Parts: sequence; structure tokens; C-alpha cells
Amino acid sequence: MTEPFVVVGADAAGLSAASKCRRTDPDREVVVLDAGRWVSFAHCGTPYYVKGEITALTAMTALTPADVRERGIDLRTEHRVTAVDTTQQQVTVDGPDGQTEVGYGELLIATGAHARTTPLSDEALAGVFTLHGLDDAAAIRAFLTDPDAYDRADVGADERLDWERVDAMGAMAPPAQLAIIGGGYVGVEMAEALAAWDVEVVLLHRGPRLLETFGQTAGDQAVDALEALGVTVELDTEVQSVEAADGQVSAVLATDGRSWPVQGAIVGTGITPATDLIRDTPIALGDSGGIATDAFGATSVPGVYAAGDVAESIHVVTGEATWDPLGLPANRAGRAIGATVGGEQTTVGQVAHTAMVKAGAIEVGRTGIIQEDAAVAAGFEPVAVDIEAASRSHYYPGAEPLWVRLVADRQTHRVLGGVTVGTDGAALRINTIATALHAGYTVVDLMNVDMGYAPPFSPVWDPVLTAAKVLDGRL
Amino acid sequence: MTEPFVVVGADAAGLSAASKCRRTDPDREVVVLDAGRWVSFAHCGTPYYVKGEITALTAMTALTPADVRERGIDLRTEHRVTAVDTTQQQVTVDGPDGQTEVGYGELLIATGAHARTTPLSDEALAGVFTLHGLDDAAAIRAFLTDPDAYDRADVGADERLDWERVDAMGAMAPPAQLAIIGGGYVGVEMAEALAAWDVEVVLLHRGPRLLETFGQTAGDQAVDALEALGVTVELDTEVQSVEAADGQVSAVLATDGRSWPVQGAIVGTGITPATDLIRDTPIALGDSGGIATDAFGATSVPGVYAAGDVAESIHVVTGEATWDPLGLPANRAGRAIGATVGGEQTTVGQVAHTAMVKAGAIEVGRTGIIQEDAAVAAGFEPVAVDIEAASRSHYYPGAEPLWVRLVADRQTHRVLGGVTVGTDGAALRINTIATALHAGYTVVDLMNVDMGYAPPFSPVWDPVLTAAKVLDGRL
Repeated sequence: MTEPFVVVGADAAGLSAASKCRRTDPDREVVVLDAGRWVSFAHCGTPYYVKGEITALTAMTALTPADVRERGIDLRTEHRVTAVDTTQQQVTVDGPDGQTEVGYGELLIATGAHARTTPLSDEALAGVFTLHGLDDAAAIRAFLTDPDAYDRADVGADERLDWERVDAMGAMAPPAQLAIIGGGYVGVEMAEALAAWDVEVVLLHRGPRLLETFGQTAGDQAVDALEALGVTVELDTEVQSVEAADGQVSAVLATDGRSWPVQGAIVGTGITPATDLIRDTPIALGDSGGIATDAFGATSVPGVYAAGDVAESIHVVTGEATWDPLGLPANRAGRAIGATVGGEQTTVGQVAHTAMVKAGAIEVGRTGIIQEDAAVAAGFEPVAVDIEAASRSHYYPGAEPLWVRLVADRQTHRVLGGVTVGTDGAALRINTIATALHAGYTVVDLMNVDMGYAPPFSPVWDPVLTAAKVLDGRL
Repeated sequence: MTEPFVVVGADAAGLSAASKCRRTDPDREVVVLDAGRWVSFAHCGTPYYVKGEITALTAMTALTPADVRERGIDLRTEHRVTAVDTTQQQVTVDGPDGQTEVGYGELLIATGAHARTTPLSDEALAGVFTLHGLDDAAAIRAFLTDPDAYDRADVGADERLDWERVDAMGAMAPPAQLAIIGGGYVGVEMAEALAAWDVEVVLLHRGPRLLETFGQTAGDQAVDALEALGVTVELDTEVQSVEAADGQVSAVLATDGRSWPVQGAIVGTGITPATDLIRDTPIALGDSGGIATDAFGATSVPGVYAAGDVAESIHVVTGEATWDPLGLPANRAGRAIGATVGGEQTTVGQVAHTAMVKAGAIEVGRTGIIQEDAAVAAGFEPVAVDIEAASRSHYYPGAEPLWVRLVADRQTHRVLGGVTVGTDGAALRINTIATALHAGYTVVDLMNVDMGYAPPFSPVWDPVLTAAKVLDGRL
């Protein structure tokens, strides 16, 4: 008898793989093991739940455990895999009924990532949070709510929540001042979310600009957009410590001596691949710290795959391994691995680090290599342009500034990457540049795409085309 | 001495060519001849001017005559070219100071298109209009305005307008009922525009659906969106005659005997290439009726180019000649011809018939070959899917239905075309499919593009990717 396909982690990559494997080979036994109680939830939705725009926690879960089981998948939540034995082809599992061994034919490691905490923030301190999962999100929303108004239903009553923690936060006095530490995706999205509450928000970021991977224009516009929401943004500000008084946060202190009185702090300083489980196995890590994989998502050990935030991918521009912990690559790689395990060899695809983020009124997109130094490091001779155009025909109501950055290689004229920034249709426009990157397009190839034009949606030359025209003139 | 580069027509293609030629070779003499008084105006903006969203007529002109002349271009408006002699390399021009001959080194025919009128509508009849240019637009707006309120300033005072006609329309009683004949771009955009006025609007369309080149879903959604604005839509309705009483429109009569009392009618039944000028020359027309051109926009006669609505282009999917009278191809081809004439050989690019249109709350986009019969005629074996997805993460506020049609060839799996329909970010999404067409992408290539994801802008799998996934399953 074939041993089952065992999946560790019941989120985007893991459940995509499990589902696709069952669809491809309906007779295949598939076991999904997850340490937590939640499955298939949308990390990216949590800031908007904290904001209050999404009311039900369960709205953010794509599948219930019952849905998963209906697909014929043996889903076991609250089952933590504690060891992987690639010689015996089995995993050790700690579950509610004790420890067991589960043999596998193929294994998928889809354990995701951990939120990085600063050495200085004590997570045990009441009022210090990371945002990595629904329990964190519910705890933050409970903390923001006045104890007199606190009601389990309001934070999204669900038996799977860590109610001890959430209720404790609900009983605390709501903060008058909050610090966000870190100005990446989570920091910026949480700044928008918290600004919707009756609380003073200060966003402290170590680097010289917000959303560093999106470039200078995106960073500048994000500062303006968050300040317009009442958020105080402090760049070049490294936090030295979170101070406490009476067991609760009382202030954050920067290395330059400045301090801000706050009653809570959200740490959004990034994530790291959750590779603890494979530390003592021969499964190889890549330079990024994620698990190294090939074009099919296979690791260095036959029969073992990795996908999602724990794994590396191949960069479509450089052809090199990279770590791109985002939702679509996780889903796509999981789906491909499920097909492969089910009998249909399928590549996991490549990544361009394409991303979108909203900061108040501003929307930004990025794809590929957008910084000169990164392009040089990858062996290119970059030429970049930054243009400002209008989002619609200039005379049509609602036309707003739209900034496009486009980077190409001087030798080959190949497009290496781009950024789109604006308040009107900026984020969606990044997908045309991403498509051009996958096609290996030159600047002229991109400039010659027959894009659509109608005054309510675009100028005659879409801003992406205008950027290509200007860049072509510089090559 | 080199004879000048002579351009006939001072609109998108003509002025793009003239400007680019001067930039490429600043010493080259460039003469632009136009029969009218307006230059460089945005046809596509006129419905929104009629609607009242754009107040100044001149807002729709990208360049003033003074701007054009500042570029060193010898612009002569109200100079009608009446003959082309390709042997002598000269054109005959009727201008305010009589008839002259102008010799050319290279010639660009950029005479655009004429609005098609029905044999039954008498344009001389007060209250019958086509919409092809700023004079038509101003006349319609004046007609809609109550005579007591009519003011030249309100319709966009500009000395270039045909004031005799506009003032006459301003003096007429405004219509209580209006018919629009034709349900293509102009008909649909004018229906939205007129619905903003205090007038009953009936849209009469000969075919079974609105916006026929956009497919069934777009047509259905456009009907709903226009009806929501109070417009009556009558499909499968061929107009037999426009009836008049006392010299003014009194009714439209359909071939099936139905009639609608109206005081005005807008005829939007399409356009034809304005090729009268070259009838007696050896410059060859293509099967479409437009001027045949090669990859550089050159006609069958050496030194003579054609671009814009009067010329054919090459279709990026079929590689065959096609007629695609839209703004971007006109600008791009003109620009390329200007560069070539200026000394830098540049191809005019290919077209995909990519288009966007707004119908009330609905936005639609289309690109490539979207109908099975057209695909079969082009030698393909089409497979099509129509999917419905959400415009954003389903739990994020503002998520709306988004329909995508995707067509591919069964043999090669190549993407042939697509349609996007919805109220939220539908039109812009067509550009990713257009980019995929130009790249010669297969369905799997498109499915594997690393597009952006953030809940406010897109589900994890953008609807275009979802369509590719579903279509891949059918191949």
C-alpha cells in the first residue's frame, strides 16, 4: 500500500497541495497536520479586521475544517509535528491523544513563517503584540475596545480563539497612545487600521523610508497618506526598548534618546521561515534561510517538498533562488506540488516579488528588481526612470497623479522591474509589468503592447507605456 | 533641398508623427494640413463633455495650435487637401488664400474616419446628430440646454466652434425624448451622458446585444447598467426612418412597426475610414477598406505613409491586416512614422483590438479574439471559459463580481483573447491579458505570472489568473 501524502501546515500552501492532490488522484490518502486550531485563513486580511472593516473573524477563512474534510482530506488540527525522519519516511506528531508516528510516501513542509520579534520587546508584557494570525488580531481588537463595551461577539466569537488571552486584553483599559515598530507591510497596514480607532498612533521605522522594498516614491507617498490619517511617522528611528510600569507598556525608547509614552506596541519587524522542524534533517536550506527547492518544489531529499513562506522560489528575472513569502506563490506552489504528487508533473512557477499594499489613500505595487544596487548585484547594468502621469485622461473627473518607476538593463534592454504608486488604479497596473517580466520583455516590447484606452480609466498612453517610452529614450 | 514631410490631418496620428519627426531631426521641415479648425482633440472625451462632467471644450485638446507651432511644425488649419499626386510628389491644398500645391519628400495620410450615417437619417434635419468632433458635441449640448439658460460660455466658448450651428441648437426647445441609434461605444457612452440630463432616452440597437465586440456578458451588464440610469434599451431593433414634423424630428420608426416619439436622434452606427482623398491614387486599400500598410506604416507607394483611423494595422494574434480605429494605435503609429521619417527606422507595432468602455457603473475591457467563430475563421480551434470571481478578497469591503472570458487555441494552448467585465477594477485588468497576447503566451504561461495580491485590490488569485486556471483544465 502506498503511504499517504503527508502535509505539515494547513494554510495556503498546505491545503492547496492537499486539495489538488485529491482532485488529481481521488484515491490517494492525504493527511494534513497542523499545530494550531485555525486552518486556511487569510493573513493579509487581519489588519482590516483590526481596523473594523471586517467584522467576522471567520470571513477571513477560505475553508472550514469541515470543508477540508469533505474533500477527503484527513485533517488533524492541534497536531504538532515535532520531528521528521527522512530515512524511515515518517513524522512524529504530538496530538491531543499523545505522540504518534505517521509514515509518508511524499511529505510537504508548509510550516510558514514566524513573526520576528525584537530582542527588546517582551511578548509576555501586556500590550505588546505581533500580528501573525487570528489570535493576535483578536487580542489587538479586544485591547483597543473599552472594557465596558467589550463583548466576545464583537471580536468575532469563535471557539477556536485563545479566549483566555483575548478576554484578558478585553478587560484592559484601552490605550490612548500606541506605537508600531516597523514600517514594512504590517506596520503600514496596521497604522491605517489603528488610525480608525480613538488612539494616538506613532509609527517608528528604523530605515530612511517606509515600505523599503517599494522604493522612494512609494515610501514618501505612504508617509503623506498615513500622516493624513493622523499617524505620526518617525523614520530613521531605531527602538531600543519597550518600557513597562506595573506590568504594562508605558513607553518606547529610541536609541537616540527620544521616547514616546504609549500603552501598547505592535511589533511588525518582519518574518522568518519556520524551519525549526527540519533542523536535524538532511533537508537543505538555501542562502536566504528558507528551504531550498527545485522547479517542482522538491527539496534536496527525494519525496520531500516545501512550499509557502518556509520555502525558497526561483526569481523570474535572475533565475536564482529567492525567498518571497507571499500568498499567491504559496498557493501556486502548493497546487503544483499537489498535482505532481497526484501524478501530474507540474512546475511551481517563478516569482517576481510582485506585491501590492494600501497605505490610507495610497496604493502601491512593485515587481522585479527596482533598486540599482540590487540590479548591479544580479549582474545587470540598470537604467531607471521615474515618471509622473495621470491615472485617467487629464480632463476626466477623478484623474489623479500616478507615478511609475521602470528599470531595465542597458545591455539587453530587458525590463528588470517596476513600481506603481497613486490613489487611482495604481496597484492593479503593476500586473502588466509583472507579465512583461515573465515574458522577458525589452522596454520596446512593453512600449508596443496594445493596452486599452478610455478617458474614465486611462490616458491614451497608459502610465506604464509612458514610462516605457521615456526609458526607451534613455537606453 | 529635401522636400518637407507633409502630414494630412492634425489629430492623434498626424501630430504624433509631426512632433516625433521634429524631435528626431530638428532640421526637417514638417507641414501639417488640416481641413478643420480643431487640432489634437480627444474624440473619446466628447460623451463626457455632453454629459457635463467636462465643462471646457478646450480641456479635451492636448495641444493648441500655438503649442504645435512652438515645436517648429508648419501647421495650417482650414487647409483642405483635395488631391494627392504621387508621381509629382505633391498635394493640392484649398486654403483661405486659394489653391496651392505643396511638394513632399514623405507624405503621411492621417485623415481619420467619418461617422457613418444611416441612409434614413437626414443630417440636415434639426435634432439629428452624429458625434464626431467638438462641433457635434457642442451642438448636442446646446440642443439639450433650455433656450432661456443657453449661454455660449456654458457650452465652452471658443472661437473655433461652428457658432451658427451651435447657436441654432441653443435656440431650440430642449427635447423631452431622445433616441440613440446604435449600441456600440458611442451609443452606450452617449446613453450614459444623456441620462444625466432631464430627458427620456431610448437606445435602439439592431443587434442582439450592446457592445457586440465585447461579448455577451459585457452586453448584458451594459443593458442592466444603462437601465439603472433610466435608459430604455431596445435590442434587435432596426430603425427604418426618422420621422419629422415642421422640420424637426418627431419620431423614430422601427422596421417591425414600433415607433418612439422623440424630438432628437443621435446616430452612432460606426465609422468608416476617410479614404476619399486617395481614391484616384495608386495607394492601395486593404480588404477592410482602410489603407494597407506595412510594419513601418508605409503604403504601397514609396514615401507615402498612413496611420490612425484611415489605415490598417497588423493583428498581433493573427498576423493579418486589420482595421482598429482607436486612439493608442493612432498615436503609436504616428510616433513611429515620425521617427522613421526623421531617420530612425521604427516599427508601428501591432494591435490586439484592446479596448475599454464605461457604461454607467459597468466597466468592460476586451483584447484579441474573443468569439469562437472569429477564432475559427483565423485558423484556430478555440476553447473558451467564462468565469465569475471577486474583484477583491471576498471579505474586503467593496469586493464586487468580476467576469472574465478567456479564449485559447486547443492545439497550441496559446491565449487568443479575453474580456473583463465588472464595476471594480475590471477595465484595467484587460491590460495583463493584452500583454500576454503580445508575448504569445500559452494559458499556463499566463497562469504562472506572479501578479500582486492585497485584499483591497485583488483576491489571492487575480480573476485573470483564475480564468487561466479554469481554462487550463479544459485544454
